[in-house]
Amino acid sequence: MKGLLFVISAPAGCGKDTILNELFKKTDTAGYAVSATTRAPREGEVNGVHYHFLTREEFEHKIAEKEVLEYTEYCGSYYGTLRKSVDDLINQSKDAILKIEVEGAMNIRRMFPEACLVFILPPSWEVLEKRLRDRGTETEEKIVERTKQARTEIKYAENYDYLIVNDKLDEAVDDLLAVLRAEKLRRSRSDELLNSFGEGGKA
Amino acid sequence: MKGLLFVISAPAGCGKDTILNELFKKTDTAGYAVSATTRAPREGEVNGVHYHFLTREEFEHKIAEKEVLEYTEYCGSYYGTLRKSVDDLINQSKDAILKIEVEGAMNIRRMFPEACLVFILPPSWEVLEKRLRDRGTETEEKIVERTKQARTEIKYAENYDYLIVNDKLDEAVDDLLAVLRAEKLRRSRSDELLNSFGEGGKA
Repeated sequence: MKGLLFVISAPAGCGKDTILNELFKKTDTAGYAVSATTRAPREGEVNGVHYHFLTREEFEHKIAEKEVLEYTEYCGSYYGTLRKSVDDLINQSKDAILKIEVEGAMNIRRMFPEACLVFILPPSWEVLEKRLRDRGTETEEKIVERTKQARTEIKYAENYDYLIVNDKLDEAVDDLLAVLRAEKLRRSRSDELLNSFGEGGKA
Repeated sequence: MKGLLFVISAPAGCGKDTILNELFKKTDTAGYAVSATTRAPREGEVNGVHYHFLTREEFEHKIAEKEVLEYTEYCGSYYGTLRKSVDDLINQSKDAILKIEVEGAMNIRRMFPEACLVFILPPSWEVLEKRLRDRGTETEEKIVERTKQARTEIKYAENYDYLIVNDKLDEAVDDLLAVLRAEKLRRSRSDELLNSFGEGGKA
């Protein structure tokens, strides 16, 4: 069975990176399709692991060469999905997990209607703001900007297939694992299986 | 959050009883909505646990009193869902698991479009026949009848939401657990959650 395409989005501070780190410790049937960006790496971020960090020139060259599946500009930087990142996983029969922001997710939905979109929510606005402050990596100005951004992003949540509240990390990770597992069992993805039961398998 | 309604169907010999037994050892958020039937109990079957075993007269009385949510006649016996079995679980905020055959499942879908339907498949026709014979509780005539019945039932599988192949029991149980968990996270069931984010939660 071919791997599926999952898109994970969440406002900054909702813990999507932590959830994905834990997820990949618990499953080897899915892989992370590393995004490309022109924003500066944060402390600890590794090129090719967290993002492919590119210059604007490099990014624009890849767009021109059609190596970028979708991209958007967000807070002054490019963010995009490299076609190769997805193809490499799918070709290994692994699910490809994309971590992208809301507009990119909507582009993926248009291009791949069979993609499964998951939105991570904070338990509340209050908790989200607290988490952003506790991170300690952002200026107050950036925190205000990101909180405002979160309120815009959450409007897109209703277009996603699944909503996961990241209250307790373990439960959010298990929620996401359940989504990955269940989504493969959906009838709409199982034509081949039913056909294997021959004439009797189709009405 | 209110419990959801799950319908599990499978041809005889696909192991749905074993799967459900194991399921209820692993979760306490779901309960079994015991069906009613007029067929004779098999060895080991307990009234009120495996089925509510009723006489034809009792069953028909309950139909007349509108205490039966749906029912059908199958291999010469009535099988049906008692309204009380479902209501008791939902009122405790538990998911109600119904084990019913295909026509009953289609009736539930019509009455409760939000119900989630799961069909259990054997790994192959050959394995199914072997399992029926190994059971040792059925006459050869019954085995032929049930195999023929299975080929009819599987035609309904395409109307279900999820398909689970019972090849390895543990994996089939974990598949079903994943379906129960993921289904609660579906966007279409989460209006209340999004509303809790206030104006910002709705586009």
